[in-house]
Amino acid sequence: MSYKRIFDIDAWKISTTELHKEDLRLQESMTSIGNGYMGMRGNFEEKYSGDHHQGTYISGVWFPDKTKVGWWKNGYPHYFGKVINAMNFIGIRVLINGAEVDLYTDTVTDFYQELDMKEGILRRSFTVNGQVRIETERFLSISKLELCLIDYRVTNLTDQNMNVELIPYLDADTKNEDSNYEESFWVEADRKVGEPYVSLAATTKENPFGVERFTVNSTMGIVTDNVTSKKIEEAALFAAVHYVYDVAPKAAAAIQKFVIVTTSRDMNTEQLIPTAESMMMEAMNKGYNLLKEEHVNAWAERWDKADIEISGDIEAQQGIRFNIFQLFSTYYGHDERLNIGPKGFTGEKYGGATYWDTEAYAVPMYLALADKRVTENLLRYRHNQLAGAHHNARQQGLKGALYPMVTFTGVECHNEWEITFEEIHRNGAIAYAIYNYTNYTGDTSYLVNEGIEVLVEISRFWADRVHYSKRAGKYMIHGVTGPNEYENNVNNNWYTNKMAAWVLKYTMDSLSKVSEARSQELGLTESELAKWSDIVEHMYFPYDEELGVFVQHDTFLDKDLRPVSSLAKEDLPLNQKWSWDKILRSPFIKQADVLQGIYFFGDQFTLEEKEQNFSFYEPMTVHESSLSPSIHAVLAAELKMEEKAVEMYKRTARLDLDNYNNDTEDGLHITSMTGSWLAIVQGFAGMRTYNETLSFSPFLPKGWTKYKFHINYRDRLLNISVEQDEVKITLVSGEPLTMELYGEQVEITNESALVTTIAS
Amino acid sequence: MSYKRIFDIDAWKISTTELHKEDLRLQESMTSIGNGYMGMRGNFEEKYSGDHHQGTYISGVWFPDKTKVGWWKNGYPHYFGKVINAMNFIGIRVLINGAEVDLYTDTVTDFYQELDMKEGILRRSFTVNGQVRIETERFLSISKLELCLIDYRVTNLTDQNMNVELIPYLDADTKNEDSNYEESFWVEADRKVGEPYVSLAATTKENPFGVERFTVNSTMGIVTDNVTSKKIEEAALFAAVHYVYDVAPKAAAAIQKFVIVTTSRDMNTEQLIPTAESMMMEAMNKGYNLLKEEHVNAWAERWDKADIEISGDIEAQQGIRFNIFQLFSTYYGHDERLNIGPKGFTGEKYGGATYWDTEAYAVPMYLALADKRVTENLLRYRHNQLAGAHHNARQQGLKGALYPMVTFTGVECHNEWEITFEEIHRNGAIAYAIYNYTNYTGDTSYLVNEGIEVLVEISRFWADRVHYSKRAGKYMIHGVTGPNEYENNVNNNWYTNKMAAWVLKYTMDSLSKVSEARSQELGLTESELAKWSDIVEHMYFPYDEELGVFVQHDTFLDKDLRPVSSLAKEDLPLNQKWSWDKILRSPFIKQADVLQGIYFFGDQFTLEEKEQNFSFYEPMTVHESSLSPSIHAVLAAELKMEEKAVEMYKRTARLDLDNYNNDTEDGLHITSMTGSWLAIVQGFAGMRTYNETLSFSPFLPKGWTKYKFHINYRDRLLNISVEQDEVKITLVSGEPLTMELYGEQVEITNESALVTTIAS
Repeated sequence: MSYKRIFDIDAWKISTTELHKEDLRLQESMTSIGNGYMGMRGNFEEKYSGDHHQGTYISGVWFPDKTKVGWWKNGYPHYFGKVINAMNFIGIRVLINGAEVDLYTDTVTDFYQELDMKEGILRRSFTVNGQVRIETERFLSISKLELCLIDYRVTNLTDQNMNVELIPYLDADTKNEDSNYEESFWVEADRKVGEPYVSLAATTKENPFGVERFTVNSTMGIVTDNVTSKKIEEAALFAAVHYVYDVAPKAAAAIQKFVIVTTSRDMNTEQLIPTAESMMMEAMNKGYNLLKEEHVNAWAERWDKADIEISGDIEAQQGIRFNIFQLFSTYYGHDERLNIGPKGFTGEKYGGATYWDTEAYAVPMYLALADKRVTENLLRYRHNQLAGAHHNARQQGLKGALYPMVTFTGVECHNEWEITFEEIHRNGAIAYAIYNYTNYTGDTSYLVNEGIEVLVEISRFWADRVHYSKRAGKYMIHGVTGPNEYENNVNNNWYTNKMAAWVLKYTMDSLSKVSEARSQELGLTESELAKWSDIVEHMYFPYDEELGVFVQHDTFLDKDLRPVSSLAKEDLPLNQKWSWDKILRSPFIKQADVLQGIYFFGDQFTLEEKEQNFSFYEPMTVHESSLSPSIHAVLAAELKMEEKAVEMYKRTARLDLDNYNNDTEDGLHITSMTGSWLAIVQGFAGMRTYNETLSFSPFLPKGWTKYKFHINYRDRLLNISVEQDEVKITLVSGEPLTMELYGEQVEITNESALVTTIAS
Repeated sequence: MSYKRIFDIDAWKISTTELHKEDLRLQESMTSIGNGYMGMRGNFEEKYSGDHHQGTYISGVWFPDKTKVGWWKNGYPHYFGKVINAMNFIGIRVLINGAEVDLYTDTVTDFYQELDMKEGILRRSFTVNGQVRIETERFLSISKLELCLIDYRVTNLTDQNMNVELIPYLDADTKNEDSNYEESFWVEADRKVGEPYVSLAATTKENPFGVERFTVNSTMGIVTDNVTSKKIEEAALFAAVHYVYDVAPKAAAAIQKFVIVTTSRDMNTEQLIPTAESMMMEAMNKGYNLLKEEHVNAWAERWDKADIEISGDIEAQQGIRFNIFQLFSTYYGHDERLNIGPKGFTGEKYGGATYWDTEAYAVPMYLALADKRVTENLLRYRHNQLAGAHHNARQQGLKGALYPMVTFTGVECHNEWEITFEEIHRNGAIAYAIYNYTNYTGDTSYLVNEGIEVLVEISRFWADRVHYSKRAGKYMIHGVTGPNEYENNVNNNWYTNKMAAWVLKYTMDSLSKVSEARSQELGLTESELAKWSDIVEHMYFPYDEELGVFVQHDTFLDKDLRPVSSLAKEDLPLNQKWSWDKILRSPFIKQADVLQGIYFFGDQFTLEEKEQNFSFYEPMTVHESSLSPSIHAVLAAELKMEEKAVEMYKRTARLDLDNYNNDTEDGLHITSMTGSWLAIVQGFAGMRTYNETLSFSPFLPKGWTKYKFHINYRDRLLNISVEQDEVKITLVSGEPLTMELYGEQVEITNESALVTTIAS
């Protein structure tokens, strides 16, 4: 496995002393910041004429880009929904004695850049042509989500007075790199340019799909002094203020750029500018320093509950913090209309807002690290999109609800048949998240109110999607793509069949918790429930007696089975080296498939079953999905394959930091970032929550001297610390709790920490 | 099955007395003409401002249109090769007293249009606004392929002198309707405008794929008289001559438009205009009438050898003639660089020049109806493209040659993975055509020289493409799409496995006929041949004992098997009513799959096996490929299911005439037009040629009183006539022949016809 590391190792910082002109896209991805409401790649404020990717994204603001497809197939989505590259509001042009600063062409020395993850602040400083020293800091406030703040200072290093021009601007003439037909998606909507603020609003252009148009306004306010002259500059989709300074030696020209971003998602378009102006006034009254303090304190509060401290392995330490930082920057549950996009605010690839990644990989982490309301909002998001899921099922001629593979509204907007139509296991993960939330929190209120409706509709889909094979006397599911996307259109994918049967069973079990009235509303009939029971009872699960493994799908065992280790180095990664057909018929597995099911339903299988399946499938797994290593880390840890668990952890924790997949320049792998948390907490610490019981079974990875973390569980905050010899569990807040440690029942009280010897 | 018939029933004509403004595209498709070298839809010479599709196509002139694909997959073709819409050289603008004739907006009465299939001439006459009668006739000469001739006459119906303007023009500013990115593909290359001719040449624009650019020149010469004035009109990609006439009552203004089309396929671009001019001079010296006579005679000669006469069913008669006429208009073997595109010169859909349709469906007909050189050229075409086929196999990481699904050069240019990468059975059909040609003609010269190289390379592909399943102890072929495109990515498609094993066997058998030297050139080793033998011996063929059927693919029998008759009317056609996934997992079959194999290898199966497989698969077949009904007609006839055979014949013979698939407006289904010939000759007449023996076993369809046809077989011309009571076989020319009739050996001599009672 090759990698490219362009930032230094540091426990709390992503920093470098180099301007990586050859890898500026990578550098930009790695220094992305966000606050859930909006975010951007680590673009520079001043001009950069070399190859890079300017990208600013506003949560929930998207465009339905007309589908690009070689051969239309009935039922295809008409558009591919895309997070769109929005107004660049961070820009500041800089001119020194009339010459514009351009970091690509200028001589840049003493460069330093850092993303301070503890404070959520991005800083840079550098010297241009020996003439000026520029220092800048930027953050997107997490205590005032509409607010972006930039502090920008240009110091004269020469012994002459210097003419400095600073031109903070708003530029809405932006374009998606991945636009299907190279179109721009924005038209100007409104502007108000003058004293004291400059506002510019742009609207997404008309579309033929009846999708809502979005308007985004940015209002800019500038704090500066010692200005010689000042003028407004305007152009289509562009507005700026041009400040001129006469700067003495050692002195500086400096501005604080305040930006308030308001969008039509939250108010009428007429209110966008007035609201932003009033927010701006408030912000300016508080001032930069106070706003920064509030922001830093809010991050401290998040870290108090979420940080994982690792001693003895600073690379691992940096990895886990970077992942948690970027996840929280992408989503912290403030808005139930939002979800966690695969690239967050760090790029455009994959489009879409929501994948099954959220339910399968992100929910467990948010449950443990954030208020349960955060996860509840993720569930509610799906409930709110039930109409879209109905639509998707109807497109396929089926009953019930099929949640989409990619969506903004609930309506499917991916356009490959083998994904859109066939990767339907996603519908199980949506249900699993409801179980996960309910089981973890002990709070059944979501389940019995909204959740049950989602479960019933998903169950109706499955009950219609199976068919009865008279020959086998079993229910089957043909024509699916499992989690392993290196196979397509297979029959009886074990994972999918397992999920389908489980959903039907869980739904029926849950109905017993629901009021009579609610039950009636759902319109269930005896015969419908009888059919579900029959399916659960007679579902077909491919299994091989001889090998003792669940079979990935019907004909998997007929393949030329061989381990990844039999491949030549030149063959990897398969997705870059092999043609698609060769990958499809090979035995090599992209990501956990049978093992994903064993992971989800870990309480249903014996250790021996787990061991047999892991030993059979893992050696054939190439882990070419960023979602793969974490699940394998968790299972390997449970199976005491500590080395394998650590190997898998490393692949997930520093995937972007070390650019393992050689694609981080396109953006960070946001949704798979939960993987490193899963690997540590569910893997190394062995945390489980089956049957409403919290349990741990920790080990300490080789080379580590200690790790500790918090989790919140049912209104309690627990601190778990694992050292060479001992495991210590402290109840930081909340009521005493009965739980399990290494399989033994223990009681945690707030009187004293529970300390026990680490198991070997 | 619904249909739309807009032309009258006639034994030799496609005629109508209506201008079908609502269906003009359909009308244009049906009246397409071609001469193998070039062709065009039945567009009008004069202006038509309503919806229609102007289309002129030159054989072998194409453009590599950048692939349009939702999600790129490794190994995908970079371009989709398209037959391109070339210069409109038939156009004649007509102005009456200054107002332009436009058949869409004018009042048109006494409209008549006919495509005379006997003579290969398209004629129209109609009255415009009660003022003028226009008569026009057009043909593309089959005795001088570069030549298009139009006779156009405007008669003054009023009692006043009339100002008539006729503006014959050349217009190269044309565009493909199916361009992926809405680009135009032409740039102007050259022009020579003056006396006596007008020439205009256009070149296909640059492309980044290294594909040859083509230049097409049209040289126009006009014969007319009584001209009042004349001037040249020019614009970019456009040239015209503007003639003005003062026409007395009852008199006419008339022109003969001669066009010579030369292309860079046949000469250097500098020679295009001079060569065309010299051809034009020659043509004009001969004059319109003589050129027409030569053309009509050439068609008569073709029909003498190819016509099928049917008594008692004029619809059937029209159907078979229309199909033969359009096939011969598309391809008559004059150029081994050409092939038979699925839409011929009648539309743009599907792109590409060459599909497996040629080998599977067209070869048998051309073998029987045309000189063997015609078929040999089709085989040679593939031999010439061996390098491309090597490239395709290499793209998939495999040895040998993989002939493409769609191509111009041998390089694959289709862009769906499930077709490009998986529908590899096509590679068997290429080999089968070599067998078919050799077995039919008895001439092994192609086989032992070029053919053997093609066979060996195809065999090398198959030998590398199979894998050995240790579990089953058999060779398998996973991840294919069979002829039934309503399934994708299946394992062990019986037809594909059968084809692969047969190719290996046939190649090894053929090697015994090849000289030692040639064998050595091919570089075959003992171990390679041993491997091939092993594969032939241990190939896996899915078979079900209980049902006694070959199984379409591994898990086919697990489906919810049911007949098409169980579907509701609203479900059909499936490809318009059902989503793709639902089609894929359904048991419904698009076209012959197992039965295609039984058709190809009819001598290897017992009648009982044929009957069992036909009875099992046909009821599940929706025949939504135009290639489907013919194969079923042939098998049904053999199985004495005469009604089914006739039903299938009707679907194939009048597919376009009655627009059964509701898509003839896009162009005719050229390659499947052989189907009606197959249904009559191999079906009703039971012609077979297995093991170098010609045999017949005719029956007379209900309602028909007689049918007769010619075939040429091994330097003989035979006439087969089937009536109520008797079958009569006459040796028109050539040596006596031993053959079989109803399974009995008979001798045909040139002394007297063989007459026998028809079997019931």
